[in-house]
Amino acid sequence: MSAILAVPTLIEVAAVTGGAISGALHASKRRMDLMGIGIVAICTGVGGGAIRDVILGNSVPIFLLQNYLLMAVIGAVAGYFFGKLVSELEPAIYVLDTLLIGVWVVIGAEKALALDLPYSAAVFLGLTTAIGGGLLRDVLCRNIPTALMPGQWVAASAIVAALFFVTIEYFTDARVMAETVAIVSATVLRALSARYNWITPDAVDASTRFRHWLGLGKKPQPAQHWP
Amino acid sequence: MSAILAVPTLIEVAAVTGGAISGALHASKRRMDLMGIGIVAICTGVGGGAIRDVILGNSVPIFLLQNYLLMAVIGAVAGYFFGKLVSELEPAIYVLDTLLIGVWVVIGAEKALALDLPYSAAVFLGLTTAIGGGLLRDVLCRNIPTALMPGQWVAASAIVAALFFVTIEYFTDARVMAETVAIVSATVLRALSARYNWITPDAVDASTRFRHWLGLGKKPQPAQHWP
Amino acid sequence: MSAILAVPTLIEVAAVTGGAISGALHASKRRMDLMGIGIVAICTGVGGGAIRDVILGNSVPIFLLQNYLLMAVIGAVAGYFFGKLVSELEPAIYVLDTLLIGVWVVIGAEKALALDLPYSAAVFLGLTTAIGGGLLRDVLCRNIPTALMPGQWVAASAIVAALFFVTIEYFTDARVMAETVAIVSATVLRALSARYNWITPDAVDASTRFRHWLGLGKKPQPAQHWP
Repeated sequence: MSAILAVPTLIEVAAVTGGAISGALHASKRRMDLMGIGIVAICTGVGGGAIRDVILGNSVPIFLLQNYLLMAVIGAVAGYFFGKLVSELEPAIYVLDTLLIGVWVVIGAEKALALDLPYSAAVFLGLTTAIGGGLLRDVLCRNIPTALMPGQWVAASAIVAALFFVTIEYFTDARVMAETVAIVSATVLRALSARYNWITPDAVDASTRFRHWLGLGKKPQPAQHWP
Repeated sequence: MSAILAVPTLIEVAAVTGGAISGALHASKRRMDLMGIGIVAICTGVGGGAIRDVILGNSVPIFLLQNYLLMAVIGAVAGYFFGKLVSELEPAIYVLDTLLIGVWVVIGAEKALALDLPYSAAVFLGLTTAIGGGLLRDVLCRNIPTALMPGQWVAASAIVAALFFVTIEYFTDARVMAETVAIVSATVLRALSARYNWITPDAVDASTRFRHWLGLGKKPQPAQHWP
Repeated sequence: MSAILAVPTLIEVAAVTGGAISGALHASKRRMDLMGIGIVAICTGVGGGAIRDVILGNSVPIFLLQNYLLMAVIGAVAGYFFGKLVSELEPAIYVLDTLLIGVWVVIGAEKALALDLPYSAAVFLGLTTAIGGGLLRDVLCRNIPTALMPGQWVAASAIVAALFFVTIEYFTDARVMAETVAIVSATVLRALSARYNWITPDAVDASTRFRHWLGLGKKPQPAQHWP
């Protein structure tokens, strides 16, 4: 634990409730019922941490032990009854979300390091904590997962934060600096991507170039011009 | 454990096999193959308890230790070979299902309490046990989860049962009474909802009213009439 | 452990990387972005083993401890940058996949037996290890799971291998023979099914015949001919 993450309570309340509200709005767009909205809200709010804890597996997930479920239910109720008001607050949720990606990454990665897992596992679990809730929401709503499609740099910000975190941690062992850089870099990257409308790239194909580089394949013929 | 749940074997056989038959029928409607029908049947039959045990995580899930897999396979075979006969039995499966929602809720909630988890976790795990199998079935069949959509009071009956259970347990510590009330209330609520065709509500919007109550927003203007 | 599975490293590298490439190609067909391709590739490559380990639950999944994540990322990068080249290698991946189904089944089943779980659990976990990654891939890509639909004998080969494995293990305790028969039978069955274009059967309906056999129901009337 560290200076930054020693007082996470308010941050966690905001993150879980914000996630739950987002889940409730998605479910209500899908015309789900009261229970569907509640269940999707809970899965979105606590899902990332739950998947992480279930993968690690040797103790009861933290969302069952603390008041996470209660916060998620509050978010669900807000989404259920005050959908219109909450939609007007969407910019606020959005800002919150942007600020919190890095926090989730750091929480997940630190949990992995506390168990002496390798750095690759820390990156994986940081990413899982940050985007797992949204994935679960999209699977339950039968949407194609937005985090996986071209769009804003959500998952990309998370992986950048995770890589910064483990790199700094590895070379300097300065936990607070690693946390700060990770959280700030994720926030800045996501904010910049939103401001300048950067879209995450889909698959590029370097096959032809690579084949050339290997000396295989024929050169593309220049277009022939009739005289 | 308790008087009521001390002899759960027959109940569990019925519940797992019934769930598996329901899964097999769904998969066969989706034109899945032999293996697909088997896998979806198993996931529906043992899924709720499996998700609960996986979330709790510190021991091997009960469905691997007891004969749940065998029962689920029997249900799958019934659905595979005798789809038409089994469809005629659908009312029976339906009645069974109605009777058993509360039982699953109680089994899940008691498992949480046995681990000294908070009451919110007991409600969550009761609900998970009751509807997890159906959720898994719908995700694998790529249906939108029926438990989350407006329709019969399935998930709603489960949550009512769970709330009754933990409330009575909290105030009186009378386990048998808590179990009885939970099981009976779920059965009655679901039966009434089917009988009188109650549909679970989707999102309501109290935003405008709430804004008024806060003294914000303008009053809706009465329609103006020209003289 | 055994003679055959004592040196699994090369096999595992091939299997995880091959799975990841397959996931990356699926995701890139879905027009997912860089992160989506990476995440689906990782889930396909390590998913089967991860689900198995999460179900068993009492220790950290093996994919977090060893270099599985790295192999999966290599597969993802290959799929991301060299989609066209990799597609030309598809026959190779296919052959690899055919050879490896049985290996995954054996690894999963042995893990169950090492924990003294019943044989039904060994069959279940062998099947889970073999097809879990593909299921996860299809759920994330919002495809209907191919392993569950009529088509090539993938899941069917896996279950045959699992049944051979536990049967031989049960009767003879000859681990190496059980492994060999399981791996060879899965490979041969899948290869034959591909060669002769066998399609897995979907639901048959024996209801009418069964009803007759029970003496119930009326005989189908022969068509009446007017004189």
